[in-house]
Amino acid sequence: MTERHIITLLSDFGDRDVYVGVMKGVIAGINPQLQVIDLTHQIPPQNIAAARFCLMSAWEYFPPQTVHVAIVDPGVGSQRRAIAVEFAGGYLVAPDNGLSSGILSLSPAIAAVELTNPQYWRSPQPSTTFHGRDIFASVGAYLASGVALENLGDRIDIDSLVEFSLAPPQLTSAGITGTIQYVDRFGNLVSNIPAEMVAEKNWQVQVKDATIPQGRTYSDVAVGEIVALIGSHGWLEIAVNGGDGRSRLGIDIGDTITAID
Amino acid sequence: MTERHIITLLSDFGDRDVYVGVMKGVIAGINPQLQVIDLTHQIPPQNIAAARFCLMSAWEYFPPQTVHVAIVDPGVGSQRRAIAVEFAGGYLVAPDNGLSSGILSLSPAIAAVELTNPQYWRSPQPSTTFHGRDIFASVGAYLASGVALENLGDRIDIDSLVEFSLAPPQLTSAGITGTIQYVDRFGNLVSNIPAEMVAEKNWQVQVKDATIPQGRTYSDVAVGEIVALIGSHGWLEIAVNGGDGRSRLGIDIGDTITAID
Amino acid sequence: MTERHIITLLSDFGDRDVYVGVMKGVIAGINPQLQVIDLTHQIPPQNIAAARFCLMSAWEYFPPQTVHVAIVDPGVGSQRRAIAVEFAGGYLVAPDNGLSSGILSLSPAIAAVELTNPQYWRSPQPSTTFHGRDIFASVGAYLASGVALENLGDRIDIDSLVEFSLAPPQLTSAGITGTIQYVDRFGNLVSNIPAEMVAEKNWQVQVKDATIPQGRTYSDVAVGEIVALIGSHGWLEIAVNGGDGRSRLGIDIGDTITAID
Repeated sequence: MTERHIITLLSDFGDRDVYVGVMKGVIAGINPQLQVIDLTHQIPPQNIAAARFCLMSAWEYFPPQTVHVAIVDPGVGSQRRAIAVEFAGGYLVAPDNGLSSGILSLSPAIAAVELTNPQYWRSPQPSTTFHGRDIFASVGAYLASGVALENLGDRIDIDSLVEFSLAPPQLTSAGITGTIQYVDRFGNLVSNIPAEMVAEKNWQVQVKDATIPQGRTYSDVAVGEIVALIGSHGWLEIAVNGGDGRSRLGIDIGDTITAID
Repeated sequence: MTERHIITLLSDFGDRDVYVGVMKGVIAGINPQLQVIDLTHQIPPQNIAAARFCLMSAWEYFPPQTVHVAIVDPGVGSQRRAIAVEFAGGYLVAPDNGLSSGILSLSPAIAAVELTNPQYWRSPQPSTTFHGRDIFASVGAYLASGVALENLGDRIDIDSLVEFSLAPPQLTSAGITGTIQYVDRFGNLVSNIPAEMVAEKNWQVQVKDATIPQGRTYSDVAVGEIVALIGSHGWLEIAVNGGDGRSRLGIDIGDTITAID
Repeated sequence: MTERHIITLLSDFGDRDVYVGVMKGVIAGINPQLQVIDLTHQIPPQNIAAARFCLMSAWEYFPPQTVHVAIVDPGVGSQRRAIAVEFAGGYLVAPDNGLSSGILSLSPAIAAVELTNPQYWRSPQPSTTFHGRDIFASVGAYLASGVALENLGDRIDIDSLVEFSLAPPQLTSAGITGTIQYVDRFGNLVSNIPAEMVAEKNWQVQVKDATIPQGRTYSDVAVGEIVALIGSHGWLEIAVNGGDGRSRLGIDIGDTITAID
């Protein structure tokens, strides 16, 4: 058995119910030696965009071979596929609804299977509403315990995986135009303009009527002031020092910003 | 020493304070090899009904011998008993206020003790307000480490355990009448009508003025539509596909529903 | 290698984002044998007073040698120091902004270093906004794995650590006057008057216009009634049995109370 013994969990299950605890019970029943780490369970209900971003932001900080189990699954019980994907940095076990597309934009897929082998499910008759418990957690535990990807089900074409893609940032006459792709708990607005596109430049950010100065860190501006910087995720980000950028600027996921050289 | 090394924790302590972390510190101090899994700490304050349901829903997904430590304890510091109960699927360590009655309705009690032996408490002088730390977490850690149930205190009669029971579902001329016993984070309304009572039948659900069609999974109805189905907990459940059933229907815990054949 | 293998994490990162999960990934990458325990991640954003209190309340329930990693860091990216402190009960790894001063008021510092050795950072070029991931979690993992404190950076004077101190409780003609230093999830108001100052006395508490009777536990008064007692943290505390003391009394952190003999 190879030594891939970390599983992460990400979901929109929240923390009020026992859904997450139950998935950990299933995992512990399969292999109590596995280490389970929560990424977050507070993805807004059925928000694939947020889940995709969180997975894309987190995977590279985990040891190689880590198995990421992600369940944001509006189509549970329908015909959507359940999949496992191997990529250079680890594995993803998830519904095939676009959750994988963030990770795979940074670390290409090596192989993928549809989870058709009920031997690795919790039971051959999964519920119609909780595949997190009955399929994904169980399959994740076996995969992290050394079961080979190809045993989990039928090989599928990597190109057939469902894409969830944002319009990529564009060079326009005004500058580099991008999209807010995530808002974190502090109200920091994370765009999809990568650090590389604005590195080594003197830029400021235009959003709605506001022009926001460039900084290096939050405290480069006074408390309550707005700053644009390269955030810890590696994207151009807008923040208010000690405040909430979303409510302050009245912009949100999907809105457009422009970095002006 | 036998190998029962998983402890679950359930409480109404929330996640803003260090109460839960401190219980884990106490457990780690007794036996750092134990694996601690949170069921939930977001039980509404002092809501025994919700805690009873969560325990009843979760225990069967954990390995045998798991020790479930549950602290929803409005009577802390009063004369209510602290107990440990052995049942076929594991152990429960909790105040004797009805928390055990959901699990025990599915998996009968084998033996029970009152936690009168201070040798397994954190200190012989527990605080009057935090038995989770001073008694329950400590006793749970010893029990999960192999200490025998009978060493934890005086044997008590199983029939003396405090009951918290819902009116059972009833066959009436209108159909099967049950009660909403839980509302999860998504607003799904979980009744106390078990799958077995409505299996193999064509039924719909009457609640207030609404008649709700039967489905197999959420996506059997259009987004925003209401559906009645057997939920992942094994009970008849009412949900809104992609929405919140509680706010949509204006019903809550304790309200009555009727499954019509 | 010595056996100090528990790390606790405390932050204001919340649970919506992957910040906490990512820190655990960094720790697991350094030493997967470490046990990571969350104290809380729901410190109000940048609230050093609350974080200081939580650390002060929690450390003594953990085994000796536990490494506490605390990140409430309004000055991230500025010139504030990053430090590790050894005290009788364990280690603290944190920004030097007063977070340590609660613990150290109870368990004096033995030695302290500034985290100047990039060998134990995640990378020699840490981000300017997420030292929790790039410095604190990484250094904490090495420290918990047996790396000596003095290897982490330059020794600094214990007296140079930033203080965050409350006015100590005072004996006045009216009684013992103290300050509310924390409000927990239940709305219980925790003062900075220690149990020892009011032990063995018959006292009541004056706050605004209200005079609150002394009790031993919450249920010493009827549901909905106010009681003053020694809380599980060891401080004089005001609570409402089954209710929320903060909203009921309209007082909060920083307000004054007086214990009258």
